[in-house]
Amino acid sequence: MRLSETPRTRLTRHAERVGTEIDDLYAVLDAGLVGHLGLVRDGSPVVLPMGYGRSGGTLYLHGSSGSGWGRVLDGEPVCFTVTHLDGVVYARSVFDHSLNYRSAVVFGVARLVDDADEKWLGLEVVTEQLSPGSWSYARLPTKRELAATVVFALDLTEASVKVRTGPPSDEPEDVVEGGRWAGVLPLRIVSGTPESGPDVEPGLAIPPHVTDRRLG
Amino acid sequence: MRLSETPRTRLTRHAERVGTEIDDLYAVLDAGLVGHLGLVRDGSPVVLPMGYGRSGGTLYLHGSSGSGWGRVLDGEPVCFTVTHLDGVVYARSVFDHSLNYRSAVVFGVARLVDDADEKWLGLEVVTEQLSPGSWSYARLPTKRELAATVVFALDLTEASVKVRTGPPSDEPEDVVEGGRWAGVLPLRIVSGTPESGPDVEPGLAIPPHVTDRRLG
Repeated sequence: MRLSETPRTRLTRHAERVGTEIDDLYAVLDAGLVGHLGLVRDGSPVVLPMGYGRSGGTLYLHGSSGSGWGRVLDGEPVCFTVTHLDGVVYARSVFDHSLNYRSAVVFGVARLVDDADEKWLGLEVVTEQLSPGSWSYARLPTKRELAATVVFALDLTEASVKVRTGPPSDEPEDVVEGGRWAGVLPLRIVSGTPESGPDVEPGLAIPPHVTDRRLG
Repeated sequence: MRLSETPRTRLTRHAERVGTEIDDLYAVLDAGLVGHLGLVRDGSPVVLPMGYGRSGGTLYLHGSSGSGWGRVLDGEPVCFTVTHLDGVVYARSVFDHSLNYRSAVVFGVARLVDDADEKWLGLEVVTEQLSPGSWSYARLPTKRELAATVVFALDLTEASVKVRTGPPSDEPEDVVEGGRWAGVLPLRIVSGTPESGPDVEPGLAIPPHVTDRRLG
Protein backbone atom coordinates (compact mmCIF):
# COMPACT_ATOMS: atom_id res chain seq x y z
CA MET A 1 0.00 0.00 0.00
CA ARG A 2 1.28 3.43 -0.88
CA LEU A 3 1.61 6.34 1.48
CA SER A 4 -0.66 9.12 0.30
CA GLU A 5 1.01 12.50 -0.15
CA THR A 6 -0.37 15.66 1.42
CA PRO A 7 1.04 19.19 1.26
CA ARG A 8 2.81 18.79 4.60
CA THR A 9 4.29 15.36 3.87
CA ARG A 10 5.63 16.37 0.44
CA LEU A 11 9.40 16.68 0.56
CA THR A 12 10.70 19.98 -0.68
CA ARG A 13 14.27 18.74 -0.81
CA HIS A 14 15.88 15.49 -1.92
CA ALA A 15 12.72 13.90 -3.28
CA GLU A 16 14.85 10.87 -4.18
CA ARG A 17 15.11 10.07 -0.48
CA VAL A 18 11.39 9.58 0.04
CA GLY A 19 9.85 6.29 1.08
CA THR A 20 6.54 5.79 -0.66
CA GLU A 21 5.14 2.58 0.80
CA ILE A 22 3.28 2.09 4.04
CA ASP A 23 5.72 -0.74 4.77
CA ASP A 24 8.58 1.80 4.64
CA LEU A 25 6.79 3.73 7.38
CA TYR A 26 6.16 0.65 9.50
CA ALA A 27 9.77 -0.49 9.14
CA VAL A 28 11.13 2.82 10.45
CA LEU A 29 8.66 2.90 13.33
CA ASP A 30 9.13 -0.73 14.30
CA ALA A 31 12.92 -0.36 14.54
CA GLY A 32 12.77 2.46 17.10
CA LEU A 33 12.77 2.78 20.86
CA VAL A 34 11.86 6.43 21.30
CA GLY A 35 10.21 9.03 19.13
CA HIS A 36 9.76 12.77 19.51
CA LEU A 37 6.22 14.04 20.03
CA GLY A 38 5.44 17.57 18.91
CA LEU A 39 2.46 19.46 20.26
CA VAL A 40 1.42 23.09 20.42
CA ARG A 41 0.96 24.80 23.74
CA ASP A 42 0.03 28.48 24.01
CA GLY A 43 0.98 28.85 20.36
CA SER A 44 4.50 27.47 20.81
CA PRO A 45 5.82 24.06 19.85
CA VAL A 46 6.88 21.54 22.48
CA VAL A 47 8.94 18.46 21.55
CA LEU A 48 9.18 15.60 24.04
CA PRO A 49 10.94 12.24 23.71
CA MET A 50 8.78 9.24 24.48
CA GLY A 51 8.25 5.56 23.92
CA TYR A 52 5.55 4.29 21.60
CA GLY A 53 4.12 1.20 20.01
CA ARG A 54 2.20 0.23 16.88
CA SER A 55 -0.74 -2.03 16.23
CA GLY A 56 -1.58 -2.19 12.53
CA GLY A 57 -2.24 1.32 11.30
CA THR A 58 -2.39 2.90 14.76
CA LEU A 59 0.43 4.35 16.82
CA TYR A 60 0.07 4.34 20.60
CA LEU A 61 1.67 6.63 23.16
CA HIS A 62 1.32 6.47 26.88
CA GLY A 63 2.00 8.75 29.77
CA SER A 64 1.12 9.49 33.33
CA SER A 65 -2.33 10.93 33.89
CA GLY A 66 -0.50 13.49 36.02
CA SER A 67 1.82 14.63 33.26
CA GLY A 68 1.57 18.09 31.80
CA TRP A 69 1.22 17.03 28.19
CA GLY A 70 -1.15 14.13 28.93
CA ARG A 71 -3.82 16.46 30.22
CA VAL A 72 -4.02 18.53 27.06
CA LEU A 73 -3.43 16.13 24.19
CA ASP A 74 -6.88 14.72 23.39
CA GLY A 75 -8.13 16.11 20.07
CA GLU A 76 -4.99 18.16 19.51
CA PRO A 77 -2.88 18.13 16.35
CA VAL A 78 0.42 16.37 16.96
CA CYS A 79 3.48 15.27 15.06
CA PHE A 80 5.46 12.18 15.98
CA THR A 81 8.93 11.66 14.52
CA VAL A 82 11.21 8.64 14.74
CA THR A 83 14.80 8.91 13.52
CA HIS A 84 17.55 6.34 13.19
CA LEU A 85 21.15 7.44 12.63
CA ASP A 86 23.01 5.07 10.34
CA GLY A 87 26.21 6.93 9.57
CA VAL A 88 28.16 10.17 9.40
CA VAL A 89 28.79 11.08 5.76
CA TYR A 90 32.21 12.73 5.36
CA ALA A 91 32.38 14.55 2.03
CA ARG A 92 35.34 16.34 0.47
CA SER A 93 33.55 19.63 1.09
CA VAL A 94 31.94 20.79 4.30
CA PHE A 95 28.84 21.64 2.27
CA ASP A 96 28.24 18.05 1.20
CA HIS A 97 28.68 16.51 4.64
CA SER A 98 25.55 14.67 5.66
CA LEU A 99 24.09 11.83 7.67
CA ASN A 100 22.78 8.47 6.65
CA TYR A 101 19.48 8.05 8.42
CA ARG A 102 15.95 6.73 8.29
CA SER A 103 13.18 8.96 9.58
CA ALA A 104 9.40 8.90 9.75
CA VAL A 105 7.28 11.99 10.41
CA VAL A 106 3.65 11.27 11.32
CA PHE A 107 0.95 13.94 11.42
CA GLY A 108 -2.44 13.54 13.01
CA VAL A 109 -4.81 14.30 15.83
CA ALA A 110 -4.24 12.56 19.15
CA ARG A 111 -7.16 10.55 20.44
CA LEU A 112 -7.46 9.68 24.13
CA VAL A 113 -8.15 5.95 24.35
CA ASP A 114 -11.19 5.38 26.54
CA ASP A 115 -12.06 1.81 25.61
CA ALA A 116 -10.56 -0.59 28.15
CA ASP A 117 -9.61 -3.24 25.60
CA GLU A 118 -7.91 -0.76 23.31
CA LYS A 119 -6.10 0.82 26.25
CA TRP A 120 -4.80 -2.62 27.25
CA LEU A 121 -3.68 -3.25 23.66
CA GLY A 122 -1.97 0.15 23.55
CA LEU A 123 -0.05 -0.59 26.73
CA GLU A 124 0.95 -3.99 25.39
CA VAL A 125 2.40 -2.65 22.14
CA VAL A 126 4.16 0.24 23.89
CA THR A 127 5.72 -2.23 26.32
CA GLU A 128 6.70 -4.67 23.60
CA GLN A 129 8.27 -1.92 21.50
CA LEU A 130 10.50 -0.87 24.41
CA SER A 131 11.20 -4.34 25.76
CA PRO A 132 10.01 -7.26 23.64
CA GLY A 133 9.02 -10.16 25.87
CA SER A 134 8.25 -8.06 28.93
CA TRP A 135 4.48 -8.19 28.49
CA SER A 136 4.48 -11.96 29.10
CA TYR A 137 7.31 -11.93 31.68
CA ALA A 138 6.62 -8.94 33.92
CA ARG A 139 3.67 -8.32 36.22
CA LEU A 140 0.79 -6.79 34.24
CA PRO A 141 -0.86 -3.48 35.22
CA THR A 142 -3.24 -3.30 38.17
CA LYS A 143 -6.44 -1.26 38.14
CA ARG A 144 -4.66 1.46 40.09
CA GLU A 145 -1.80 1.54 37.62
CA LEU A 146 -4.22 1.64 34.69
CA ALA A 147 -5.97 4.62 36.26
CA ALA A 148 -2.62 6.38 36.60
CA THR A 149 -1.88 5.89 32.90
CA VAL A 150 -3.24 7.65 29.84
CA VAL A 151 -2.99 6.12 26.39
CA PHE A 152 -3.26 8.10 23.18
CA ALA A 153 -3.81 6.79 19.66
CA LEU A 154 -2.60 8.35 16.43
CA ASP A 155 -3.77 7.04 13.07
CA LEU A 156 -0.90 6.31 10.68
CA THR A 157 -2.65 7.86 7.70
CA GLU A 158 -0.51 10.95 7.04
CA ALA A 159 3.23 10.49 7.19
CA SER A 160 6.46 10.97 5.32
CA VAL A 161 9.45 8.67 5.31
CA LYS A 162 12.92 9.82 4.36
CA VAL A 163 15.99 7.66 4.00
CA ARG A 164 19.56 8.49 3.04
CA THR A 165 22.02 5.70 2.36
CA GLY A 166 25.31 5.31 0.59
CA PRO A 167 28.49 7.29 0.06
CA PRO A 168 28.91 11.08 -0.06
CA SER A 169 27.73 13.01 -3.13
CA ASP A 170 30.64 15.33 -3.78
CA GLU A 171 30.86 18.09 -6.35
CA PRO A 172 32.63 16.78 -9.48
CA GLU A 173 35.39 19.39 -9.16
CA ASP A 174 36.18 18.23 -5.61
CA VAL A 175 36.52 14.64 -6.80
CA VAL A 176 38.80 15.71 -9.66
CA GLU A 177 40.94 17.81 -7.34
CA GLY A 178 41.44 14.79 -5.06
CA GLY A 179 43.64 14.71 -1.98
CA ARG A 180 40.77 14.52 0.48
CA TRP A 181 39.23 11.34 1.83
CA ALA A 182 35.47 10.90 1.65
CA GLY A 183 33.31 8.14 3.02
CA VAL A 184 30.91 7.01 5.68
CA LEU A 185 31.43 6.23 9.35
CA PRO A 186 28.65 3.73 10.11
CA LEU A 187 26.71 4.19 13.35
CA ARG A 188 24.50 1.81 15.26
CA ILE A 189 22.99 1.36 18.69
CA VAL A 190 24.29 -1.63 20.60
CA SER A 191 23.40 -3.10 23.95
CA GLY A 192 25.92 -3.94 26.62
CA THR A 193 25.89 -6.58 29.33
CA PRO A 194 22.62 -6.59 31.31
CA GLU A 195 23.05 -5.12 34.81
CA SER A 196 20.92 -6.86 37.43
CA GLY A 197 19.15 -4.63 39.93
CA PRO A 198 20.62 -4.56 43.47
CA ASP A 199 17.59 -6.31 44.98
CA VAL A 200 17.36 -9.22 42.54
CA GLU A 201 17.54 -12.49 44.47
CA PRO A 202 20.85 -14.38 44.00
CA GLY A 203 20.75 -17.09 41.38
CA LEU A 204 17.77 -15.69 39.47
CA ALA A 205 18.64 -16.04 35.79
CA ILE A 206 18.48 -13.09 33.43
CA PRO A 207 15.60 -14.05 31.12
CA PRO A 208 16.24 -14.79 27.42
CA HIS A 209 14.16 -11.83 26.20
CA VAL A 210 16.87 -9.65 27.76
CA THR A 211 20.01 -11.70 27.14
CA ASP A 212 19.09 -12.51 23.53
CA ARG A 213 17.86 -9.09 22.56
CA ARG A 214 19.24 -7.70 19.31
CA LEU A 215 18.83 -4.04 18.51
CA GLY A 216 18.61 -2.14 15.24
CA MET B 1 25.38 28.99 36.47
CA ARG B 2 21.89 27.70 37.14
CA LEU B 3 19.19 27.14 34.55
CA SER B 4 16.31 29.48 35.28
CA GLU B 5 12.92 27.81 35.57
CA THR B 6 9.91 29.00 33.60
CA PRO B 7 6.39 27.55 33.57
CA ARG B 8 7.09 25.49 30.47
CA THR B 9 10.44 24.16 31.64
CA ARG B 10 9.14 23.12 35.06
CA LEU B 11 8.87 19.34 35.26
CA THR B 12 5.47 18.11 36.31
CA ARG B 13 6.72 14.58 36.87
CA HIS B 14 9.88 13.13 38.41
CA ALA B 15 11.31 16.41 39.61
CA GLU B 16 14.26 14.43 40.98
CA ARG B 17 15.41 13.83 37.42
CA VAL B 18 15.92 17.48 36.60
CA GLY B 19 19.28 18.97 35.72
CA THR B 20 19.59 22.43 37.18
CA GLU B 21 22.92 23.73 35.89
CA ILE B 22 23.68 25.29 32.54
CA ASP B 23 26.58 22.84 32.30
CA ASP B 24 24.07 19.97 32.46
CA LEU B 25 22.38 21.47 29.42
CA TYR B 26 25.63 21.96 27.52
CA ALA B 27 26.76 18.42 28.31
CA VAL B 28 23.59 16.89 26.84
CA LEU B 29 23.76 19.10 23.75
CA ASP B 30 27.47 18.59 23.17
CA ALA B 31 27.13 14.78 23.23
CA GLY B 32 24.56 14.66 20.43
CA LEU B 33 24.58 14.32 16.67
CA VAL B 34 20.99 15.14 15.83
CA GLY B 35 18.17 16.93 17.60
CA HIS B 36 14.48 17.30 16.84
CA LEU B 37 13.25 20.76 15.89
CA GLY B 38 9.62 21.58 16.61
CA LEU B 39 7.86 24.41 14.83
CA VAL B 40 4.25 25.38 14.26
CA ARG B 41 2.85 25.51 10.75
CA ASP B 42 -0.80 26.37 10.07
CA GLY B 43 -1.49 25.74 13.76
CA SER B 44 -0.06 22.23 13.74
CA PRO B 45 3.25 21.03 15.13
CA VAL B 46 6.03 19.77 12.84
CA VAL B 47 9.01 17.85 14.23
CA LEU B 48 12.07 17.43 12.03
CA PRO B 49 15.40 15.75 12.83
CA MET B 50 18.45 17.87 12.13
CA GLY B 51 22.06 18.50 12.97
CA TYR B 52 23.09 21.41 15.13
CA GLY B 53 26.02 23.04 16.87
CA ARG B 54 26.70 25.22 19.87
CA SER B 55 28.88 28.25 20.46
CA GLY B 56 28.70 29.42 24.07
CA GLY B 57 25.08 30.13 24.91
CA THR B 58 23.83 29.97 21.33
CA LEU B 59 22.57 26.95 19.41
CA TYR B 60 22.93 26.97 15.63
CA LEU B 61 20.89 25.12 13.03
CA HIS B 62 21.38 25.14 9.32
CA GLY B 63 19.40 24.16 6.31
CA SER B 64 18.96 24.71 2.64
CA SER B 65 17.57 28.08 1.64
CA GLY B 66 15.20 26.03 -0.53
CA SER B 67 13.85 23.94 2.34
CA GLY B 68 10.25 24.29 3.42
CA TRP B 69 10.99 24.98 7.08
CA GLY B 70 13.93 27.29 6.39
CA ARG B 71 11.73 29.83 4.64
CA VAL B 72 9.37 30.28 7.58
CA LEU B 73 11.50 29.98 10.69
CA ASP B 74 12.81 33.50 11.30
CA GLY B 75 11.12 35.02 14.35
CA GLU B 76 9.05 31.93 15.01
CA PRO B 77 8.79 30.10 18.34
CA VAL B 78 10.62 26.79 18.19
CA CYS B 79 11.56 23.93 20.45
CA PHE B 80 14.73 21.91 19.99
CA THR B 81 15.13 18.61 21.81
CA VAL B 82 18.18 16.35 22.07
CA THR B 83 17.81 12.88 23.58
CA HIS B 84 20.37 10.19 24.40
CA LEU B 85 19.24 6.66 25.18
CA ASP B 86 21.40 5.05 27.83
CA GLY B 87 19.50 1.89 28.71
CA VAL B 88 16.27 -0.07 28.77
CA VAL B 89 15.03 -0.39 32.34
CA TYR B 90 13.37 -3.79 32.90
CA ALA B 91 11.26 -3.68 36.06
CA ARG B 92 9.35 -6.52 37.70
CA SER B 93 6.13 -4.83 36.63
CA VAL B 94 5.26 -3.53 33.20
CA PHE B 95 4.20 -0.26 34.85
CA ASP B 96 7.68 0.47 36.18
CA HIS B 97 9.52 -0.26 32.95
CA SER B 98 11.44 2.79 31.84
CA LEU B 99 14.43 4.12 29.97
CA ASN B 100 17.67 5.55 31.17
CA TYR B 101 18.24 8.69 29.15
CA ARG B 102 19.51 12.23 29.07
CA SER B 103 17.39 14.85 27.34
CA ALA B 104 17.45 18.59 26.83
CA VAL B 105 14.43 20.60 25.70
CA VAL B 106 15.21 24.14 24.53
CA PHE B 107 12.53 26.77 23.95
CA GLY B 108 13.06 30.01 22.09
CA VAL B 109 12.55 32.12 19.02
CA ALA B 110 14.58 31.29 15.94
CA ARG B 111 16.69 34.11 14.57
CA LEU B 112 17.89 34.09 10.97
CA VAL B 113 21.62 34.80 11.02
CA ASP B 114 22.39 37.66 8.61
CA ASP B 115 25.85 38.63 9.79
CA ALA B 116 28.47 36.94 7.61
CA ASP B 117 30.89 36.26 10.46
CA GLU B 118 28.20 34.74 12.66
CA LYS B 119 26.91 32.65 9.76
CA TRP B 120 30.43 31.32 9.21
CA LEU B 121 30.74 30.53 12.93
CA GLY B 122 27.37 28.80 12.89
CA LEU B 123 28.39 26.61 9.97
CA GLU B 124 31.67 25.77 11.69
CA VAL B 125 30.05 24.62 14.92
CA VAL B 126 27.33 22.66 13.10
CA THR B 127 30.03 20.92 11.04
CA GLU B 128 32.22 20.22 14.06
CA GLN B 129 29.29 18.82 16.02
CA LEU B 130 28.53 16.32 13.26
CA SER B 131 32.09 15.55 12.30
CA PRO B 132 34.81 16.97 14.55
CA GLY B 133 37.90 17.79 12.51
CA SER B 134 36.08 18.25 9.21
CA TRP B 135 36.16 22.05 9.32
CA SER B 136 39.95 22.04 9.04
CA TYR B 137 40.19 18.99 6.74
CA ALA B 138 37.39 19.42 4.20
CA ARG B 139 36.96 22.16 1.60
CA LEU B 140 35.26 25.18 3.15
CA PRO B 141 32.04 26.69 1.73
CA THR B 142 32.11 28.79 -1.42
CA LYS B 143 30.06 31.96 -1.86
CA ARG B 144 27.53 29.98 -3.89
CA GLU B 145 27.25 27.34 -1.17
CA LEU B 146 26.88 30.02 1.50
CA ALA B 147 24.04 31.58 -0.48
CA ALA B 148 22.32 28.20 -0.67
CA THR B 149 22.50 27.79 3.12
CA VAL B 150 20.45 29.39 5.86
CA VAL B 151 21.66 29.48 9.45
CA PHE B 152 19.40 30.01 12.43
CA ALA B 153 20.39 30.88 15.99
CA LEU B 154 18.54 29.96 19.16
CA ASP B 155 19.53 31.43 22.51
CA LEU B 156 20.07 28.80 25.20
CA THR B 157 18.23 30.78 27.86
CA GLU B 158 15.12 28.68 28.43
CA ALA B 159 15.61 24.95 28.67
CA SER B 160 14.97 21.90 30.77
CA VAL B 161 17.28 18.95 31.27
CA LYS B 162 16.07 15.57 32.41
CA VAL B 163 18.20 12.56 33.26
CA ARG B 164 17.31 9.09 34.44
CA THR B 165 20.04 6.74 35.59
CA GLY B 166 20.29 3.63 37.69
CA PRO B 167 18.29 0.47 38.31
CA PRO B 168 14.50 0.02 38.13
CA SER B 169 12.30 1.43 40.89
CA ASP B 170 9.94 -1.43 41.58
CA GLU B 171 6.96 -1.46 43.89
CA PRO B 172 7.99 -2.93 47.28
CA GLU B 173 5.44 -5.75 46.98
CA ASP B 174 6.91 -6.83 43.64
CA VAL B 175 10.38 -7.02 45.18
CA VAL B 176 9.07 -9.05 48.13
CA GLU B 177 7.21 -11.41 45.82
CA GLY B 178 10.42 -12.08 43.89
CA GLY B 179 10.79 -14.53 41.03
CA ARG B 180 11.18 -11.90 38.35
CA TRP B 181 14.47 -10.45 37.14
CA ALA B 182 14.87 -6.67 37.03
CA GLY B 183 17.73 -4.61 35.74
CA VAL B 184 19.10 -2.44 32.98
CA LEU B 185 20.20 -3.28 29.46
CA PRO B 186 22.74 -0.52 28.68
CA LEU B 187 22.58 1.10 25.26
CA ARG B 188 25.11 3.15 23.38
CA ILE B 189 25.86 4.36 19.87
CA VAL B 190 29.02 2.94 18.37
CA SER B 191 30.78 3.54 15.10
CA GLY B 192 31.87 0.80 12.75
CA THR B 193 34.74 0.63 10.29
CA PRO B 194 34.91 3.70 8.03
CA GLU B 195 33.78 2.93 4.47
CA SER B 196 35.72 4.84 1.82
CA GLY B 197 33.70 6.35 -1.02
CA PRO B 198 33.97 4.57 -4.38
CA ASP B 199 35.84 7.46 -6.00
CA VAL B 200 38.54 7.96 -3.35
CA GLU B 201 41.95 7.65 -4.98
CA PRO B 202 43.81 4.42 -4.04
CA GLY B 203 46.27 4.79 -1.20
CA LEU B 204 44.69 7.91 0.30
CA ALA B 205 44.70 7.38 4.07
CA ILE B 206 41.55 7.73 6.12
CA PRO B 207 42.28 10.81 8.23
CA PRO B 208 42.69 10.53 12.03
CA HIS B 209 39.62 12.66 12.78
CA VAL B 210 37.61 9.79 11.29
CA THR B 211 39.61 6.75 12.38
CA ASP B 212 40.09 8.00 15.94
CA ARG B 213 36.57 9.27 16.48
CA ARG B 214 34.92 8.15 19.71
CA LEU B 215 31.21 8.61 20.15
CA GLY B 216 29.03 9.12 23.23
